[in-house]
Amino acid sequence: MPMFRVCALGVSIDGFAAGPNQSLENPLGVGGLRLHDWMFPTRAFQRVHGKEGGTTGIDDDFAARSFENVGAWIIGRNMFGPVRGPWPDESWKGWWGNDPPFHTPVFVLTHHARAPIPMEGGTTFHFVTEGIHAAAERASAAANGKDIRVGGGVATLHQFLRAGLIDELHIAISPVLLGSGERLFANIDMLKLGYECAESVATPKATHLMIRKQK
Amino acid sequence: MPMFRVCALGVSIDGFAAGPNQSLENPLGVGGLRLHDWMFPTRAFQRVHGKEGGTTGIDDDFAARSFENVGAWIIGRNMFGPVRGPWPDESWKGWWGNDPPFHTPVFVLTHHARAPIPMEGGTTFHFVTEGIHAAAERASAAANGKDIRVGGGVATLHQFLRAGLIDELHIAISPVLLGSGERLFANIDMLKLGYECAESVATPKATHLMIRKQK
Repeated sequence: MPMFRVCALGVSIDGFAAGPNQSLENPLGVGGLRLHDWMFPTRAFQRVHGKEGGTTGIDDDFAARSFENVGAWIIGRNMFGPVRGPWPDESWKGWWGNDPPFHTPVFVLTHHARAPIPMEGGTTFHFVTEGIHAAAERASAAANGKDIRVGGGVATLHQFLRAGLIDELHIAISPVLLGSGERLFANIDMLKLGYECAESVATPKATHLMIRKQK
Repeated sequence: MPMFRVCALGVSIDGFAAGPNQSLENPLGVGGLRLHDWMFPTRAFQRVHGKEGGTTGIDDDFAARSFENVGAWIIGRNMFGPVRGPWPDESWKGWWGNDPPFHTPVFVLTHHARAPIPMEGGTTFHFVTEGIHAAAERASAAANGKDIRVGGGVATLHQFLRAGLIDELHIAISPVLLGSGERLFANIDMLKLGYECAESVATPKATHLMIRKQK
């Protein structure tokens, strides 16, 4: 069965999945990029971004798993860009340049309709205004039997978690303090929602935890 | 210089330092004992509780550090016991039996005065009604040049952190979800308070993080 997966979600010691004040300069908020220090140098991450080389080992294994068997993505409006409210024009096409690292259909949750944007490398951005269940259905159809990867931000993740739609989360706790930002586990009771930690592996750069919904 | 240290503070993946509903049966709240699974079997923990044997290695090293060079403790009322409000009588003497594992003077923060309680093995419980600064002064004097260890609960820790009194925190993140309880880093900005993560070491049972106040 295809799964809905959250992968490579960086979290700080103090529980933030992004820093404060997301902007064009700081897509993950101030300090937020540090949450991915474990991932950037890995071979899997480098390869998805069209580069060769990179580190191998546990961090790379988790990075590789995050890209494996993904047939479609669902992301929130804030992960797609810093633009808020109605689209002022068609110019914003994501943070990632002409060849974004998804290489699948990407369903962007938004309150403001917009025509699909085909990009290079297999990525097409689709805009979904009918909510998470509509996005889940469209992504499932597009994934063609593969898994659906659900990205951030935290508000999007909470909607999916509360709806019971997420099968598996991989979070990576980095040894950094962010102080403020988007708190991953605020106002959400993961135990009541049926999740438990199934796997824990640590490297000097991150503690990797696989959290799964009990059947 | 003697330091004010928080040591061996267990935290869940979702950020709780204790489970919900602390009671006589659940001193650390429901599920809270699981936050210390890394520590209970260690040689250092066993020795402090008068037993021989135990595991060695990284978890034991951190358990041992938590007991080293401690001249006095400060703990909150809720760490001392489940009794709330005025002391109904003198019968409650802590969770730990006649020979508590402190073996130093222990200053208990409370709004309700009570005579000191000398216990076996060098522990004496003193009750401080004048707040954290008075407790810090009395504990410093009693520690006689050694460090002061500050225990929980979270409300006590927040008071000390906000007052800039804590030099070092060792937290141990366990691979468990508690869902609810006492959240360690809610409503406190560790970055603004001047802390940063100085050390990160993981074992299969816990990720140990040393967080220090920048000078």
